[in-house]
Amino acid sequence: MKKQDILTPIGLILAVGLILFGSMQGDTSLSIFFDPASIAITIGGSFAAVLITFSSEDLKKLFKIIKLSFTSSNIYKMDLVDQFKELSRKVRKDGVLTIEDEVSEIEDDFLRRGLELVIDGMDVETINEILELEMLEVENSYDKGSRIFKVWGTYAPAFGMIGTLIGLIQMLADMGTPDVIASGMSKALITTFYGALLSNIVLNPIGFNIQNKGQKEIDYREMMLCGITSIQNGDSTRIIEEKLITFLNTEEKLKYYDRVVEDKDGDRDAA
Amino acid sequence: MKKQDILTPIGLILAVGLILFGSMQGDTSLSIFFDPASIAITIGGSFAAVLITFSSEDLKKLFKIIKLSFTSSNIYKMDLVDQFKELSRKVRKDGVLTIEDEVSEIEDDFLRRGLELVIDGMDVETINEILELEMLEVENSYDKGSRIFKVWGTYAPAFGMIGTLIGLIQMLADMGTPDVIASGMSKALITTFYGALLSNIVLNPIGFNIQNKGQKEIDYREMMLCGITSIQNGDSTRIIEEKLITFLNTEEKLKYYDRVVEDKDGDRDAA
Amino acid sequence: MKKQDILTPIGLILAVGLILFGSMQGDTSLSIFFDPASIAITIGGSFAAVLITFSSEDLKKLFKIIKLSFTSSNIYKMDLVDQFKELSRKVRKDGVLTIEDEVSEIEDDFLRRGLELVIDGMDVETINEILELEMLEVENSYDKGSRIFKVWGTYAPAFGMIGTLIGLIQMLADMGTPDVIASGMSKALITTFYGALLSNIVLNPIGFNIQNKGQKEIDYREMMLCGITSIQNGDSTRIIEEKLITFLNTEEKLKYYDRVVEDKDGDRDAA
Amino acid sequence: MKKQDILTPIGLILAVGLILFGSMQGDTSLSIFFDPASIAITIGGSFAAVLITFSSEDLKKLFKIIKLSFTSSNIYKMDLVDQFKELSRKVRKDGVLTIEDEVSEIEDDFLRRGLELVIDGMDVETINEILELEMLEVENSYDKGSRIFKVWGTYAPAFGMIGTLIGLIQMLADMGTPDVIASGMSKALITTFYGALLSNIVLNPIGFNIQNKGQKEIDYREMMLCGITSIQNGDSTRIIEEKLITFLNTEEKLKYYDRVVEDKDGDRDAA
Amino acid sequence: MKKQDILTPIGLILAVGLILFGSMQGDTSLSIFFDPASIAITIGGSFAAVLITFSSEDLKKLFKIIKLSFTSSNIYKMDLVDQFKELSRKVRKDGVLTIEDEVSEIEDDFLRRGLELVIDGMDVETINEILELEMLEVENSYDKGSRIFKVWGTYAPAFGMIGTLIGLIQMLADMGTPDVIASGMSKALITTFYGALLSNIVLNPIGFNIQNKGQKEIDYREMMLCGITSIQNGDSTRIIEEKLITFLNTEEKLKYYDRVVEDKDGDRDAA
Repeated sequence: MKKQDILTPIGLILAVGLILFGSMQGDTSLSIFFDPASIAITIGGSFAAVLITFSSEDLKKLFKIIKLSFTSSNIYKMDLVDQFKELSRKVRKDGVLTIEDEVSEIEDDFLRRGLELVIDGMDVETINEILELEMLEVENSYDKGSRIFKVWGTYAPAFGMIGTLIGLIQMLADMGTPDVIASGMSKALITTFYGALLSNIVLNPIGFNIQNKGQKEIDYREMMLCGITSIQNGDSTRIIEEKLITFLNTEEKLKYYDRVVEDKDGDRDAA
Repeated sequence: MKKQDILTPIGLILAVGLILFGSMQGDTSLSIFFDPASIAITIGGSFAAVLITFSSEDLKKLFKIIKLSFTSSNIYKMDLVDQFKELSRKVRKDGVLTIEDEVSEIEDDFLRRGLELVIDGMDVETINEILELEMLEVENSYDKGSRIFKVWGTYAPAFGMIGTLIGLIQMLADMGTPDVIASGMSKALITTFYGALLSNIVLNPIGFNIQNKGQKEIDYREMMLCGITSIQNGDSTRIIEEKLITFLNTEEKLKYYDRVVEDKDGDRDAA
Repeated sequence: MKKQDILTPIGLILAVGLILFGSMQGDTSLSIFFDPASIAITIGGSFAAVLITFSSEDLKKLFKIIKLSFTSSNIYKMDLVDQFKELSRKVRKDGVLTIEDEVSEIEDDFLRRGLELVIDGMDVETINEILELEMLEVENSYDKGSRIFKVWGTYAPAFGMIGTLIGLIQMLADMGTPDVIASGMSKALITTFYGALLSNIVLNPIGFNIQNKGQKEIDYREMMLCGITSIQNGDSTRIIEEKLITFLNTEEKLKYYDRVVEDKDGDRDAA
Repeated sequence: MKKQDILTPIGLILAVGLILFGSMQGDTSLSIFFDPASIAITIGGSFAAVLITFSSEDLKKLFKIIKLSFTSSNIYKMDLVDQFKELSRKVRKDGVLTIEDEVSEIEDDFLRRGLELVIDGMDVETINEILELEMLEVENSYDKGSRIFKVWGTYAPAFGMIGTLIGLIQMLADMGTPDVIASGMSKALITTFYGALLSNIVLNPIGFNIQNKGQKEIDYREMMLCGITSIQNGDSTRIIEEKLITFLNTEEKLKYYDRVVEDKDGDRDAA
Repeated sequence: MKKQDILTPIGLILAVGLILFGSMQGDTSLSIFFDPASIAITIGGSFAAVLITFSSEDLKKLFKIIKLSFTSSNIYKMDLVDQFKELSRKVRKDGVLTIEDEVSEIEDDFLRRGLELVIDGMDVETINEILELEMLEVENSYDKGSRIFKVWGTYAPAFGMIGTLIGLIQMLADMGTPDVIASGMSKALITTFYGALLSNIVLNPIGFNIQNKGQKEIDYREMMLCGITSIQNGDSTRIIEEKLITFLNTEEKLKYYDRVVEDKDGDRDAA
């Protein structure tokens, strides 16, 4: 979970850059797009609505979640297949206790904990139950994080519209020359602009980003769970391999088969 | 269920304050934003639609639900783990009747009732069935409360638009000088403004707030149910602990492990 | 199923009254809001789309469904608990045939039919299968009724917009003085106004009203099914009570416990 | 599947008629609503998007699906109950082979095929599996047909808006007198008008119509499946009747009970 | 997976052609619809938001997915029925090893792998588990591809609106003569136009196209899985045929029955 996810900053910089580029077209200065009161209404107001919606416990995780959207997992599924094949071979040869040292060095919490339960000799149903509860907890955690951003992403344009309505009502109530109207209208539209930017450049993309990462995380966990139960069940190395490679996508499968093309026959004999 | 949820009033005050701040920008007085007839159409009209939608039985709970959104649960999951470990130890040592006094003092209705059923010696399927029906009832109750606010939150902007249409039709039907038009237009937009405020500051945030609290409540209940069935099944203290800590999120787990780091070996021996 | 649901007419009268009150503000007469051709397009057009969408068999039920939204069920869950406790006591004491007379007088079709199947000595799986099919049929019937109104509620604003487009296109094609434009625009907006009223005051609220009543109905049926299978299974009176009170919400539970506080110990002995 | 569904043409004619009536109000001729280029953009463009979305295999069924929305099923559930009671009596009396001739004359493919499998002596799980796969295929077929129209129904207003944007951009880029602007605007709005008509009078109603017919079809199939498995299981005529009448709605049940009120006792004796 | 899907290019060309045709109506030149800065904001900005939303791993598949939407599967369900009947006959006559050569020549990866597992003598549960995991992986892969386009399809109009807001704010802030306003407005609308085009001609249709192809793919896989497990279970050739033809739609069934009308009796005897 430590690799930098460079696409998130690239996307943010690109989007902001393009909007700035677009805003600099024409004769008007960029300063007409900056209005502190509009920022207060759009960003502040929508954040206030988020405060009402979620609990302090959920919001404390906000920064951690933002950080998550800038990193990506460093787990490779192909390495997982190899790791499980290795573990399975040892367990089938010399029993489950021989992998104790190896397991204690595994970095991933979920995988290590699952294998420790196998070594402790717990029955397969209890292990399954415990690990599935754990997966559910991980899923909930990503879901909640993703939902904060998505809900915020629906409040932001709404507060943008509220700000625009405030501006329009004021402008129409106290009307001067057409020039004044136009300039008032221009200011009124700025909150809608802020709401659209906030929602479409930051909040929704990050909300979906975290949702996607959560799905990937769950995917890894399911692959690990499949491997752990297979080892506990005493499946042959070949069956473990067959089961785990189904979690690879087509390219990964091709790469995997290329790599193990000579090992495979050996495996089959050993199984 | 007694702790004050300070985020709800903070969010409300912040949102209203920012909108007021935004409305005071410019030369117009705040009074142009106040129009009793518009309040009647937007708030009254959308509430009338809510009256048609829900039954009197559901609406009676309205105030109770509003109160719910200003409080938060005082259950801590870590304490639940400790409590169940304690109970499990006693039950495994001296039988289920030794916890009778302790159970009768538990404040939470669901937990107490579940453990009383265990003490009464009911079989595990019946306990499960009864407690799951109870959970379903809790879930329905929060769902219904949350839905009232969300449905109201969709009616409010609709009635805002109806009010604006009334204003526009009147204004266009009987047109005077441009000044009069503009002022009529300003008034017409006020109902849309009220609808947007009501929906985005009060109704939707509170609707989601209650939905989130319902999910948290169900989460606690599931953890309790897991503990109760484990005790009934006679699981070892260690397995109960393993199962229950899966309900903790990552930070809670770290805290929990820090706290019990020296107890743990003791537990393992005892189990 | 006979009690009057007074909230539906109250809500309708309140909503219409507030809209009328809002429309009478200003100097224009109410007559500007009345336009027969607009009514034909909005109400007639959207109803024509409903005719295409649903079958004649479904539409025949339309009036029955409208009537449903003005009545509410007169089943009280607490009375159901008492009724089942009573039945269970008799069955456990003197056998299932002793309740035959009592059952034949039960007003609710579902409950009577279920208990008749028990008396006829059918096995528990067949009873379950038959009653669940029956529940599904009830659920479908409410769902269909609710859907007709909701679908109509999406057509109505669409036809309102179609009418407004017709008006706008005509007005812009043949433009006169600004006064004429404004008055044409006012008329054009009337269909949108009708569409919004129809959808938000009548169709959507009644659609949701029926959906909610269907859920309540299913809730009663599930409680009855739970009681019927418990009696068939020969559960003790106490277990039947424990199971059924989980269907009560918190207030009902408190009331129930207050009422039976002295009976309860007696029950426990009898069980 | 041969009866004419008269509601579909009635609804179409009514909707088109009302729109024409609305369009003839005012002094403008109907010809202003006709613009070939707008038809090309709205209908042609949205159909082109449908071509990209679906496969040729799916689109070949388009005409068949349109035809479906003008017909309705001629299966009556009450007759099905009678038919199954009749079949059950024969099978229980003289064995399954006695119904062979009768079965070969059944018009409905699904029912005939299911009963042929029973006569062939296949076991109940295989029959269930085969018939459920068949039902799934029917469900998919209606779903796909309904989805083509609904997806088209979302493209049509989008292409209407694209056409309006083209008109607006042209008009504003090359501006003349206000009269010219208004007339250009009128033309620009025509594509939006076409999009709204197409979507709300034709595409969405027919899409939902087919979805509803699919549900009804599945409902009949489920009733048939229930009867077929009951016969295969050797259920008594009374149990088959009890099971099948749960598929009737309230009115049908009342009619059914009225009709068989004297037969019933006879049945019960025979069972 | 190699056949050309001609509908995708036809639809694209038709849609673009109709839009061009519509844009050439009137006196304005086509060049007013081309604005590089607007393209940068709408296409570039929405693509930047896509970069934030998805991982590099997902985006790498983008071109492969685009290619998928221009091809269609060359699997025919009727041929699959024949293939399985052939295989089943051989297996039932001379055992599972006789089909080894035939299987190794099957082009489709899923089918070959499944049958290889049968030949290897794996038990039916393991085969089912492995093949269902594989299907899930295929489903996920199409889902992800389809989601990239659909999410992009929601960003595109949003960035179109952002561009229009930029244009409007600039125009209103620095207002000149009505002519200048109109021309500014015309430019402002161009980004909305681009957003609508991109979303409705390219992104949404291709997103749904891929989703439909994924469903078709899964459908084939389910048919193959059904055949593979039937062979492994040793079902008779007739039962395999009965099961597999349920996957055909009505026309395919009619064609199939026409073709095998004389073979069928022979089959039945052999079974």
